[in-house]
Amino acid sequence: MTRIAALLALGLATTTASAQDTAAPAVNETFKFARPADQPEAIETSPDGRIAVSVTTDNDGRALWSVSRGGTLIVAPSRLGFLFTDAPKIERQLRIQSVTHAKPVDTTWTQPWGEWRTIRDNHKEMRVRLMETTPLHRVIDVVFRVQDDGIGFRYEVPDQANMHGANIADELTEFSFAEDATAWWKVAFQWNREEYLYQRTPLSAVGTAATPITLKLAGGTHVALHEAALVDYASTAVMKTEGNTLRTVLTPGSGGPKVVKTGSWTTPWRTLLIADDAPGLYMSHLMLNLNEPNKLGDVSWVKPGKFVGVWWNMIKGDWTWARGPRHGATTANVKKYIDFAGANNIQGVLVEGWNVGWDGDWAGNGSAMQFATPTADFDADYLANYAKSKKVSLIGHHETGGAASHYESQFDQAFKFAADHGEHVVKTGYVADAGQIERANPDGSIAREWHEGQWMVNHHLRVVQAAAKYRVGIDAHEPVKDTGLRRTYPNWLAREGSRGMEYNAWPGKNPPEHEANLAFTRMLEGPMDFTPGVLSLTGSDNSPIQSTIAKQLALYVVLYSPVQMAADTPENYAKYPDAFRFIRDVPTDWQDTRVLNGEVGDFVTFARADRNSRDWYLGSITDENPRNVTVTLDFLEPGRTYTAQIYKDGPGATYATEARHAIAFETKRVKKGDTIILSLAPGGGQAIRFKAGR
Amino acid sequence: MTRIAALLALGLATTTASAQDTAAPAVNETFKFARPADQPEAIETSPDGRIAVSVTTDNDGRALWSVSRGGTLIVAPSRLGFLFTDAPKIERQLRIQSVTHAKPVDTTWTQPWGEWRTIRDNHKEMRVRLMETTPLHRVIDVVFRVQDDGIGFRYEVPDQANMHGANIADELTEFSFAEDATAWWKVAFQWNREEYLYQRTPLSAVGTAATPITLKLAGGTHVALHEAALVDYASTAVMKTEGNTLRTVLTPGSGGPKVVKTGSWTTPWRTLLIADDAPGLYMSHLMLNLNEPNKLGDVSWVKPGKFVGVWWNMIKGDWTWARGPRHGATTANVKKYIDFAGANNIQGVLVEGWNVGWDGDWAGNGSAMQFATPTADFDADYLANYAKSKKVSLIGHHETGGAASHYESQFDQAFKFAADHGEHVVKTGYVADAGQIERANPDGSIAREWHEGQWMVNHHLRVVQAAAKYRVGIDAHEPVKDTGLRRTYPNWLAREGSRGMEYNAWPGKNPPEHEANLAFTRMLEGPMDFTPGVLSLTGSDNSPIQSTIAKQLALYVVLYSPVQMAADTPENYAKYPDAFRFIRDVPTDWQDTRVLNGEVGDFVTFARADRNSRDWYLGSITDENPRNVTVTLDFLEPGRTYTAQIYKDGPGATYATEARHAIAFETKRVKKGDTIILSLAPGGGQAIRFKAGR
Repeated sequence: MTRIAALLALGLATTTASAQDTAAPAVNETFKFARPADQPEAIETSPDGRIAVSVTTDNDGRALWSVSRGGTLIVAPSRLGFLFTDAPKIERQLRIQSVTHAKPVDTTWTQPWGEWRTIRDNHKEMRVRLMETTPLHRVIDVVFRVQDDGIGFRYEVPDQANMHGANIADELTEFSFAEDATAWWKVAFQWNREEYLYQRTPLSAVGTAATPITLKLAGGTHVALHEAALVDYASTAVMKTEGNTLRTVLTPGSGGPKVVKTGSWTTPWRTLLIADDAPGLYMSHLMLNLNEPNKLGDVSWVKPGKFVGVWWNMIKGDWTWARGPRHGATTANVKKYIDFAGANNIQGVLVEGWNVGWDGDWAGNGSAMQFATPTADFDADYLANYAKSKKVSLIGHHETGGAASHYESQFDQAFKFAADHGEHVVKTGYVADAGQIERANPDGSIAREWHEGQWMVNHHLRVVQAAAKYRVGIDAHEPVKDTGLRRTYPNWLAREGSRGMEYNAWPGKNPPEHEANLAFTRMLEGPMDFTPGVLSLTGSDNSPIQSTIAKQLALYVVLYSPVQMAADTPENYAKYPDAFRFIRDVPTDWQDTRVLNGEVGDFVTFARADRNSRDWYLGSITDENPRNVTVTLDFLEPGRTYTAQIYKDGPGATYATEARHAIAFETKRVKKGDTIILSLAPGGGQAIRFKAGR
Repeated sequence: MTRIAALLALGLATTTASAQDTAAPAVNETFKFARPADQPEAIETSPDGRIAVSVTTDNDGRALWSVSRGGTLIVAPSRLGFLFTDAPKIERQLRIQSVTHAKPVDTTWTQPWGEWRTIRDNHKEMRVRLMETTPLHRVIDVVFRVQDDGIGFRYEVPDQANMHGANIADELTEFSFAEDATAWWKVAFQWNREEYLYQRTPLSAVGTAATPITLKLAGGTHVALHEAALVDYASTAVMKTEGNTLRTVLTPGSGGPKVVKTGSWTTPWRTLLIADDAPGLYMSHLMLNLNEPNKLGDVSWVKPGKFVGVWWNMIKGDWTWARGPRHGATTANVKKYIDFAGANNIQGVLVEGWNVGWDGDWAGNGSAMQFATPTADFDADYLANYAKSKKVSLIGHHETGGAASHYESQFDQAFKFAADHGEHVVKTGYVADAGQIERANPDGSIAREWHEGQWMVNHHLRVVQAAAKYRVGIDAHEPVKDTGLRRTYPNWLAREGSRGMEYNAWPGKNPPEHEANLAFTRMLEGPMDFTPGVLSLTGSDNSPIQSTIAKQLALYVVLYSPVQMAADTPENYAKYPDAFRFIRDVPTDWQDTRVLNGEVGDFVTFARADRNSRDWYLGSITDENPRNVTVTLDFLEPGRTYTAQIYKDGPGATYATEARHAIAFETKRVKKGDTIILSLAPGGGQAIRFKAGR
């Protein structure tokens, strides 16, 4: 029996008014619910009037939100609500109590570093207050921000007589897409966390997916579903329920509620980027605009830059993190890397395995890690001074092995050590399978947390804040996903959070389409420490990487990170001096960014303007298919000539054979409005520096 | 970074041995892992040698199970394991410590009531002991039972130094089907619990599904995935991870662990029925065989039978459960139903709304329910005696509104009241949305549980055991799913657990294919209290039901329940005396059952032998398509003649128009080996009583 029986019993429903799910195999209907006559209208539009969000309630008092764009329904009426572990859920018997429209905002703000110097925030905002008609009379607000290129909404819940905080079992926010779509997504809640390849399936074949998930609707509109400003809440995945409907599934924690809130509380923003094409998704600033402004004050000490590292030789299995005859992080090895960085316009040297704690089975079990105790063969003081003499900084490394509480117990000494040794950036690591993060309870027992659960969301912010005290930036690996918090905490420079270059060291390498997938999925989150630039194109045991050299160069422009690695070894770079010149030249901090063209998983071309010169850089990559991409140089300054230093796939180049090393160089003069054709090899790419003349 | 880095660091792996997921969009590979040379072989076959189960470990020490049938891989190597909230997971670094094969079993046992009197249990059993190679050295056993028509396996975990019980966060059992398949499934973890329509999609488009989920593999083999003997554990759903892989997802509870176990512990059996066709799935006794024998001793007091009820008028909205001018459960109304039952070979009269507690908004909020206090207009003592005089029993009704702890506090008085009033069966109800079951904590606060979480799994058994003390049987609505426990507790007669007839009272009616779906999905669990027999074919406001009359009759044979309702009102049955004769005749307890033909969701024909006579009964139903079904009467006794009393769709009958009422009657003599053709109308069916002659 279902609830209608109860309503019938009370005379609160009639059977002609459907209180049932239409339980047919969930094709979204493009119906519009009539607005209940006794409730205010709740509609907000984007500044350009093209996107409209509306909220209404159905016969069961369910609050339903929907989005249309240019008159076409994008999200059909979709449910809102919460389950709690200790209180009746909030889902039905709601009415719209009030609707408040904020004064439209149109302003700009400046990024201390980033892909654009200035960001325009142009949005309209609507607050919909929902109140239960049942005796508890609980109130929740849903606040919508609508930009021309997407929407965000979040729940804001006041402290009230019948709800002081919440023990949230799950969030019931649904996204019922009005059309079928092609989806690019990766699985959530599996052991390898965020490090799965993106797969392309119909929307109907999505299982449980991490966000962002990118959709191309049947009508061509592109949508990316993600969240912004994830603070003190569990990260959400989305699960396909039926048809084209996705629903939030919060990441579990070790406790009963997935999220515990006290007093008044808010959720992260649920976000949809909406654009005509894939480049349009990338060009949106919605994610950053939904985050709060910088809370750290002066952040001039946050330094973007390139780095090399005692790393690839370990990833390939030639050196070890642990002490012993093949230990990588020795004073002698690091000194060579410092010399190389100093000679090649590279600002940092990452050293992994420099500290005590790597000798046991540390993965998922990092309680032996000491974050301020170097191994005997790593002379930290000497190397810090030596690096300084070469105008290079060491980049610190804190691998926790998932022992997050253990790491927190050493925060002060760890970041003091980093600061004392001139480390502007620390790379953190949480190598442990999903659900295996160690959190210490007050009684000393260990609870097991998830990398993206509420506790770890808070842990990462504790790391960033502890680091900021010592003027240290953070590059988190095995992180929580990026939701734009770099705006609020500009020392949170980058993170991993997807399959990076390291997978090219091992069997099961990244396929040629991988980076063209990343550009319109993972990269919509924010910077990724992908670690490009393996010009040798070989992993362990000389296994071939499925890329061309020119594509490795192009990745420096395509895959944004303010801290960008040159991942190969100095010995290998010495073999490719002409190609390496681009890595030496390319900056990591940008004045402006344009996505010139692209299709998810197929190809993409970026142009970016250096923040510290008048040069522009271009990077274009393709999947396994060769293609000619025509680009008009509209982005260049009018009236100025540029020398285009072109790094392109050589004759016969292809990722599939030894011809992957074929690269060609060309120099020519260009100006704004010129058209160039980029010939990309299978698995290839092209990189161009537009050196500004007069 | 992933775990391989850690292994590399330790020299425990080489990069040529893949420790990575092959992260390509998960096409199952039909590879066979080589058995590690230092581990025993773990293979068990079915008695007929056709099905083989094997367990091995991969390079990461993952234990992988697989199933083949007739040399064809059905389940590719699939993972096993557990996540815990307070201990490292068990998933990798396992080795096969020992393999034990039990003595093959081939025996029969007798059901006190059921679809078959005798059940053959013919299986082989293998116990695989897995031990961690890591310092914890934890041990888990996986026990496989292999029948000719399917397999079951469960984890059995001894109490041990490093694992005394377990706080289980989730179970990591995977089912990686080797072929693509068509899947019939319904969504799990949605508000309406088990009451969703089955949908047919590719296996790859399954989201998160309740079990049983039924598959037709590309090669034609049929498989149903479910669980058996669900005791003191959370019910599991399955979620699609990637490609053709489904993984267990345990039902949540209000606490952190989804399951809490102490000492040594076991899981329910994970089951796969495997057959050439849909009827083969139904004919398996695997589910019952995996449950423990009767624990209640003499159960001669458990009485199958038919019943009518003060019910359909409430479901339609004409009467009310609550007191007032339209109250259904009045002495006068019930007396009429008793008279009707007594006159028509119907053994029970269900009365809903007879007790105090229905006046408020009781759904999801049943704390006012009094289970031993009749309303003033319901004279329980008089009616009990009156029923007895007509050789009829009242069927009790305990609607909890989800207030399960509240119900438990009244167990003794409730079942004593039932027994004192001659109620052999009580129908229970848990009308509350998913996740809204009220469980009282020791401090009086209320926790919110799920209908199929560990706590409710245990609650239902407490109900059944409390009822058994008073010799009362249970018919649970909004129940936990059926996993064959009627073998162990034969007073657990039936349950709802899917969309029953009631949905035909309301808008969003069951489509014509619904019962043909149920036969090969929900009905694989066990008896369902579907409540067929609405011969008026009208719901609320005279809305049409999408069925013919003959199909309503056929459902008495197709949809098994030992307590089978005649759901329509006496007034309506009076309008269809010829058709009603079948309902009057048909028994509810069977000697033998044969599924003669069928395709999931299309059609099905059952033949069943009455346990108390030599008569056979046949029921055949179709979806929206008409069809002629040829049946050879091989099931009849040789040398005996039968009078076939045939109830068939009349000329022009169809569910789609007023011709749904067209029914024809025919009588003819038949004998074993005769062939008959059943002409089924769109949305129609046929019912036959084969009355045994000499």
